[in-house]
Amino acid sequence: MSALSANLVIADPAARSRLLDAIRFDARGLVPCIAQQHDTGEVLMMAWMNREAAEETLATGRVCYFSRSRGGLWRKGETSGQQQRLVDLRLDCDGDTLLALVDQTGVACHTGRRSCFYLAPRDGQLAEIAAPEIAPEALYGR
Amino acid sequence: MSALSANLVIADPAARSRLLDAIRFDARGLVPCIAQQHDTGEVLMMAWMNREAAEETLATGRVCYFSRSRGGLWRKGETSGQQQRLVDLRLDCDGDTLLALVDQTGVACHTGRRSCFYLAPRDGQLAEIAAPEIAPEALYGR
Repeated sequence: MSALSANLVIADPAARSRLLDAIRFDARGLVPCIAQQHDTGEVLMMAWMNREAAEETLATGRVCYFSRSRGGLWRKGETSGQQQRLVDLRLDCDGDTLLALVDQTGVACHTGRRSCFYLAPRDGQLAEIAAPEIAPEALYGR
Repeated sequence: MSALSANLVIADPAARSRLLDAIRFDARGLVPCIAQQHDTGEVLMMAWMNREAAEETLATGRVCYFSRSRGGLWRKGETSGQQQRLVDLRLDCDGDTLLALVDQTGVACHTGRRSCFYLAPRDGQLAEIAAPEIAPEALYGR
């Protein structure tokens, strides 16, 4: 099913600009983007995009974030191979949050877990409720 | 199924403090919180919490945000009745984003739509892909 789902690509630069103009980037020029696996509904991660990252995402159909720590574009999966193919993109009612419906190759989290949201309160403590599926060393070739 | 799912309440203040201490609030003292309907997987909205809002959420089992526009606690559904019961709470790998699994009464969006994420690119334009289920006037008694 995943392999057959359409890829969202906006090839026309003018159409991309119209869509990007609707996004309310914050004072830093960033917008939060939630990544959700399109067919299972699993929330995989949340990261940030600047206008350039959002434009590249729409132009290529591969999700590209802006890394606040590195201060540059973060082409998801460029190092690890764990790419996110863009299936659809949603903007919320006040235009300041994106929801990317993606097809995640492998795992989304740098810890090797499918989702970054693997910590939850259990018996009054924060517990890990999911195990890594891949060793981080295997992801990053260390 | 929803009605039978457990409510997450952390009654012990010391346990709440331990959990809150694990959250990395930003320079404004805020953390983004994604609300997802626990049984369908639908992403409903994204809003912000300060420590007080997160503590109230854990203490009551009802989701409470921090309204950046009003500068105060925003007990979701207090005016509209469209409350979010807390079923589980997840923290991400770097501790700076929350995912609340909720049972949403009615609709999450102030426009009367189930989810705030109802805008999507269609034919090069931003289109509304969901219709309001309730008139906003009915939600807010105008």
